[in-house]
Order: sequence, then C-alpha cells, then structure tokens
Amino acid sequence: MTQASEHEAAFRDKKVIVTGGAGFIGASLAQRLVACGAKVHIVDAFREGCGANEHNLAGFRERCQLLRCDIADEESMRPLLRGADFVFDLAGRVSHVDSMSAPQTDFYDNAVAHLSLLEWVRQECPEARFLYSGTRGQYGAIDRPGAVDEERVQAPIDVNGASKSAGEQMIFVYARAYGLAVTSLRLTNTFGPRHQMKNGRHGVLNWFLRQLMDGQTIRLFGGGDQVRDTSFVDDVVDAMCATMASEQTIGQVYNVGGEALSLKQYCQLAIEVYGSGQFEVVEFPDEAKRIDVGDYVADRSKLSTHTGWQPRTGIRAGLVRSFDYYREHRAHYW
Amino acid sequence: MTQASEHEAAFRDKKVIVTGGAGFIGASLAQRLVACGAKVHIVDAFREGCGANEHNLAGFRERCQLLRCDIADEESMRPLLRGADFVFDLAGRVSHVDSMSAPQTDFYDNAVAHLSLLEWVRQECPEARFLYSGTRGQYGAIDRPGAVDEERVQAPIDVNGASKSAGEQMIFVYARAYGLAVTSLRLTNTFGPRHQMKNGRHGVLNWFLRQLMDGQTIRLFGGGDQVRDTSFVDDVVDAMCATMASEQTIGQVYNVGGEALSLKQYCQLAIEVYGSGQFEVVEFPDEAKRIDVGDYVADRSKLSTHTGWQPRTGIRAGLVRSFDYYREHRAHYW
Repeated sequence: MTQASEHEAAFRDKKVIVTGGAGFIGASLAQRLVACGAKVHIVDAFREGCGANEHNLAGFRERCQLLRCDIADEESMRPLLRGADFVFDLAGRVSHVDSMSAPQTDFYDNAVAHLSLLEWVRQECPEARFLYSGTRGQYGAIDRPGAVDEERVQAPIDVNGASKSAGEQMIFVYARAYGLAVTSLRLTNTFGPRHQMKNGRHGVLNWFLRQLMDGQTIRLFGGGDQVRDTSFVDDVVDAMCATMASEQTIGQVYNVGGEALSLKQYCQLAIEVYGSGQFEVVEFPDEAKRIDVGDYVADRSKLSTHTGWQPRTGIRAGLVRSFDYYREHRAHYW
Repeated sequence: MTQASEHEAAFRDKKVIVTGGAGFIGASLAQRLVACGAKVHIVDAFREGCGANEHNLAGFRERCQLLRCDIADEESMRPLLRGADFVFDLAGRVSHVDSMSAPQTDFYDNAVAHLSLLEWVRQECPEARFLYSGTRGQYGAIDRPGAVDEERVQAPIDVNGASKSAGEQMIFVYARAYGLAVTSLRLTNTFGPRHQMKNGRHGVLNWFLRQLMDGQTIRLFGGGDQVRDTSFVDDVVDAMCATMASEQTIGQVYNVGGEALSLKQYCQLAIEVYGSGQFEVVEFPDEAKRIDVGDYVADRSKLSTHTGWQPRTGIRAGLVRSFDYYREHRAHYW
C-alpha cells in the first residue's frame, strides 16, 4: 500500500485517537493509520441514524482499540487522551436535512460535544496534533462563480453548516489561548466504501449508487445541473494524513476537493460504470430546496502547496471500487 | 423623553418580548419600550453571576410582565411568543474570562439556548421582527489598523466571541430557511446605569467607575493604550429601537459604536468627572492577556446610513449620568 508507507514515519507507534472512527471516513482513516503502524484508538458513540457500522472495521478490528462513548464523556475521554500524539476529530453529523428537523441534536454532536473534547485535550494532551473535520457547508450558498478558497466569508444556510463552523471557531480559540496545534480540513461531498446506505440524507453521491444497485431510477432533485466537488474517500484519508504529518499546516484551514462536476454528469458516469440504470430529474422537496447551496467547487490549491497532497483517484476509478465494495458487503449496509 | 416619542409609532400597543430584560441593556431597553406604549414581556433566567437585577426594573416594573425562565424552556416560551410582534433577544453572557473558565456555560447561554428560542419563534411568531445582540468579540483580535466594518472576517479568540458568532449564524440560517425577519447588532463596550457592579468580569468600563467610587486606585491592565469603542447604554437602546422600527434593516448585520478612546483616556476622563481618584497601569493577568483583542474601533456608518441613528451621548455626559445613578442606587449594585 503506497499511501501507508508515505506517512508511516509520522504515525508508527504513535498513540492516535480517531473520533467518529467507526464511520465512513473515520474507519477508512483508522485502517490507514493501523497500516502505518499507529496505536489507533477509535471513539464512536454509534449514534442511531449516523454512519457508524461495526463492519467498517472488518479486517483491522483486532489491531485497534474501540471505545463506545460520547466524545464529551469526561470519565472515558480524559484517560484515553492522556499521552495521545494525534487526535483526528471526525465525530459529527453530516445530514443537512436532519439538522433542520432536529437542530439541537446536530448542534450538540457538531459543536457542544467538541467544546468538551477540546477541554479534555488541553488538559490531557496539549501537545497533540489535532485535526478538525470541517465542511464546505460552512460557506453556505455560493453567491459568485469560481472556485471557493479558504478566505471566503462563512455564511452557512443550514444548522449543520453553522454547527460545523462553530466547532471550527472553537478549535482556533483553543489553539490561540492554549497553544494547541490544530488544523481544519473543510471537506466536500465524499463517496466510496463504508458509507451508510440506509437513506439519502447523508449525501447524495453514495445514495445514487444504492439506487442503481437496487435497480431503481435515480431521483435527481432540482435540475441536476448543480455542480459538486466530489472526493473519493481514500483521497480524503490521504489529505488527513498528509496534513497531520506536516508541521507547516499547524494553525491553518484547508479546503479538500477532488473532481467537480454536475450531479447529472455524476449520475451518467455512475450508470456507465455500473453498466445499467437510469435517472430522472424531479422537483426539490421543500425541505431540501430551502437549504440548497447552488454550485460548489473547492479551491484546494493551498493544501497542495503546503503538503504536496493531490487527489489521485479519479471519479471513474472511485466508482469502480465503490460498486465492488458494496457488491461484496451489501448485507452490512443495506 | 424625545427618544421614546421617535419610535412610539412602531411599538405602541405591540407585543414585545425582551430576553435578558432584567439585565443592563435589556432593562434599559424595556423601560424605553414601556415608555413607547408597548406591551413589554421581559424574560430573564436571573442566572447567578450575570447582570439581571430586580432593581433594574424599578419605576416601570408594574407596567410590564416579567417571566423568570430559560429562553429555551418550551413550556413557558411558546405561549409567550404566540402573537409577538417584536423579539429583542438580549439574553446571554458577556464575560470573556468566564467563557474560558466555564466554556459550556457560556456556549449554552449564548448559542444552544438561542437555537431553541429560534425554533419556538419560527413556530409561534414567524412574522415577528427579531433582533440579535452580537458583539465585537465576534471579530476577534484586530490585526490591522482602522475602523472595523461588518465585512471583516470573524475570527473570535475566546469562547464568548465564538458562542455569540454561532448564535448569530443560527439566526441567519433561520431567516433564510423560514423567512424570519432578523437583524443583528454587534455591540461594543457599553457603560451606564444598571450594570452589575459586583465584579469586573463583565467589562472594564463600569468596573473602573466602581473602583473610583470605592476610593480605590483603578487597576488598568496591559499598558492602558488599548483603544476601545465605548457606547453609552441609552445610545445602544436608541440603536435597537431604530433598527427594529425600520424595514430596511431586515436581514442585515450592523456594528454599533460610540466614541473610541484608549482605556487610559477613559480613566482620566472618569476621574475628572468624578472629581477625584487615580489609576495605575499593571501587568495583564495570564487569563486576561491570552484573550486580549488589541485595539477596536467600530465602523458604524452602515447603521447610520440605513436608519439615521447616531450616538448622542458623549462619554462625559454618560459618565455624569452613570455616577449619578450609582450614587443614588448604590445599595442595589454594590
């Protein structure tokens, strides 16, 4: 595994905490860190309706520690954090629609709980490198053309964007006040193996794949011309490892992105790779329309400049690997 | 009272909610609204260590309703909000230092509770005008000279700034998603009658006055050359009324400010007005130094342009009225 060897030096034998580590990106990251020889401790609350799945750890479960708890749980978290070298803080909620129907739930898991985590970090492992997983949702509706860089004003349009923005502001408050070595990566739509496939509320890219595999017509809301920047999950894991292996990234915010294309183009490509299927364009439901952000393309040049990171999986290759995974492991996700 | 008559037309016989209405600015505002003929409902949780004080309502207590509860309390708040025309949302915490020693307490009162309030507002009085009280702390450390306008990136450096920023983002999420008619005013250091005088953690301007009145040497941290934009409380009340009486302000954010001067100059002026006293410059305690923002001057031209509002009380006149008030009511504040 070439990716593992690249950052092996940074993580080998290190005590690494991955919050949300049983989820889609968290488990993919944990697997990579295990491959790098890190002592990986996964923390996950296994919230109902979120992305955690025991099966996400298949193949490396016995080579890491798993703690089932809330990241704000002082009794569990403080001893765990003691002596940690790296904290990858990936716990949180990603559903835009759910954040509007249950705002306090979203706000707790994305902001309130992380504020407690920061308290334990500053007390127990103030020297640890800390990674926050932000989102393009922090920018809100994109009001002018062109790729969005990290200086763009944050004006989230749903509770999820606002709660992630609050969590990010808090890590920089702690960084400045207590000298914590933090970095935030603002992720965009990510697809690939290990995503929850029970519903479409965590992001459409993976949900379209399930609709195809179920032989259903993909339902594409709102015209299909909305542009999304898509990341394959392994490229996001690369970005996280490259960021945390570097000292230059301390105190910085970076966009992560991959290939930008319209949702219609994504569907067409998915159908082509899958070998069959169709999509139909339907009207937005109200609840989705009111929080649609329009087109989004990430300017990811800053991260590339600082770390050399580049996404290396094209969408096509990512789709092939995704279909392969869900064909093989369908029973655990459907 | 000239100020009352100006906005009487907007508020007469209207149902007006003032959260945090037993506090420093809230009670001053409530008194003004009562004078305008509004049906004023004060909501205040009378949190220990915050600014609420029964005596703040002296003289108009019998002409308004007072509800002692948390703004997030569904059973109390939903019936109260039904049919409200105006919601002045002033509840919250202001202490920067306290926000670092008890971050979750600050975050709950400034962000979490307001998210619940917004839920009740959108369900019970979606047509009401809604005012949020933000703070200059949302901008964080001022990294370049010149007055700060509303486009400045928000990079708070303490939990209080981040929690107020989160609360403000949330009102704009609700405004966009549900059509609420919201405005945010970002306040700066405010002084005047009705401030709590038990400790200096809610802002130095009022605390200096108490030190003078107690015959103590004012202790001025960090050199004394830090510039602060100072508002007299009645001017802030003016700004709030002018903002809510206008339709042009819907969906906008405005800085509020008054006279900018160094803390040393403020002390010299206070001593002159009081007639005696002295100050000494002392080193910052660590807990204060790490969250000091440097100089702050508000660019308040946007609010003036949109509403015609201008601060009309000079610092000197404000100090005269403050000393008069605290001399007369000292027993209720010391």
